[in-house]
Amino acid sequence: MSRGSERLGVSEDEHYRERAQRKKELVDRRIARATIDRGVIVVNTGNGKGKSSSGFGMLARSLGHGFRCGVVQFIKGSFSTGEEAFFRRFDDLVEYHVMGEGYTWETQDRGRDIVTAGAAWDIAARMMSDEQFDFVLLDELNIALAKEYVSLDALLASLAARPPRQHVVITGRGAPDALVEAADTVTEMRVVKHAFKAGIKAQHGIEL
Amino acid sequence: MSRGSERLGVSEDEHYRERAQRKKELVDRRIARATIDRGVIVVNTGNGKGKSSSGFGMLARSLGHGFRCGVVQFIKGSFSTGEEAFFRRFDDLVEYHVMGEGYTWETQDRGRDIVTAGAAWDIAARMMSDEQFDFVLLDELNIALAKEYVSLDALLASLAARPPRQHVVITGRGAPDALVEAADTVTEMRVVKHAFKAGIKAQHGIEL
Repeated sequence: MSRGSERLGVSEDEHYRERAQRKKELVDRRIARATIDRGVIVVNTGNGKGKSSSGFGMLARSLGHGFRCGVVQFIKGSFSTGEEAFFRRFDDLVEYHVMGEGYTWETQDRGRDIVTAGAAWDIAARMMSDEQFDFVLLDELNIALAKEYVSLDALLASLAARPPRQHVVITGRGAPDALVEAADTVTEMRVVKHAFKAGIKAQHGIEL
Repeated sequence: MSRGSERLGVSEDEHYRERAQRKKELVDRRIARATIDRGVIVVNTGNGKGKSSSGFGMLARSLGHGFRCGVVQFIKGSFSTGEEAFFRRFDDLVEYHVMGEGYTWETQDRGRDIVTAGAAWDIAARMMSDEQFDFVLLDELNIALAKEYVSLDALLASLAARPPRQHVVITGRGAPDALVEAADTVTEMRVVKHAFKAGIKAQHGIEL
């Protein structure tokens, strides 16, 4: 209890209650103003950790609501991951595609990369045109956009024409400006520090 | 094919292969330098979306590897979420606690908030002292630290003394400097834009 509060005969607990009450009113007003109810486009970009893992967290949330979900992983794929092992178990609700044959510096074959990305894009476009899909995760698509393996115009057209309640989450560093413009929620994952730079291997359960 | 490349008789595909080869060597050298193999502390902070969902994505990854996992949600709890509905299904591998009784501005009772946070902390501390847990997610703990409901010193001591292979992920805006210092990987989720500000309700599968 602060001395000033004591002098006025008002306890710290009462101050706390008053502050909480004002905060509640503010939050309630904001919630009351947010009345639009529709599918959203979420973009996770930047150089920091958490872009893909956040996408997979939203996938888990969606499954918690019984949503029908689609996943296309555009770039990774030469190694198996924990997320793939886990989410492939729910094949009644999740259609899961890993289309990449590894990072492009692993394949060293531009022609093969373009064919692979094109096949992944065809699946993504089909999901976004199908109202059966409540949630679509296009993991590392921004990398394929930056390399022009996937057409930005085609993506923007698919997003604009998708079913109104469908959520689409797109991840990867270097999101193009026009995608940021089209999106509803965009987060830049900024590196403060990373274990890898301190010589720690990529860890199962964290990166893999 | 660029004109310069043609003149030299080197195709764009060959250039691509050379660039990819150099990139591969660089990445391989970096991977070779990262030789330390141990549990990491990951902190997701900042005002943007993706702090908790990234934590839940890493939880899914961990389950993909068959890890034994613990989750304590410190602040949320007055409403049910997709992540809770989903991850509670895996009670053979996940011990899941939702300790908050809602945001503090909902309870409006500091005494009750402190008791609730203390009970959540006791569970978190027990998990971090138990080598059976491979992965521990302390969701929104930073909020409880900022409000001094949980002791930063106690947290730092538990982190330092935890089993060497255990991963701990801590989320919430306003991570304290000493926690950033102790952590291995820290990401600031920065808001570029958010649907809520455009009047769109929190969406199942995305925020809830």
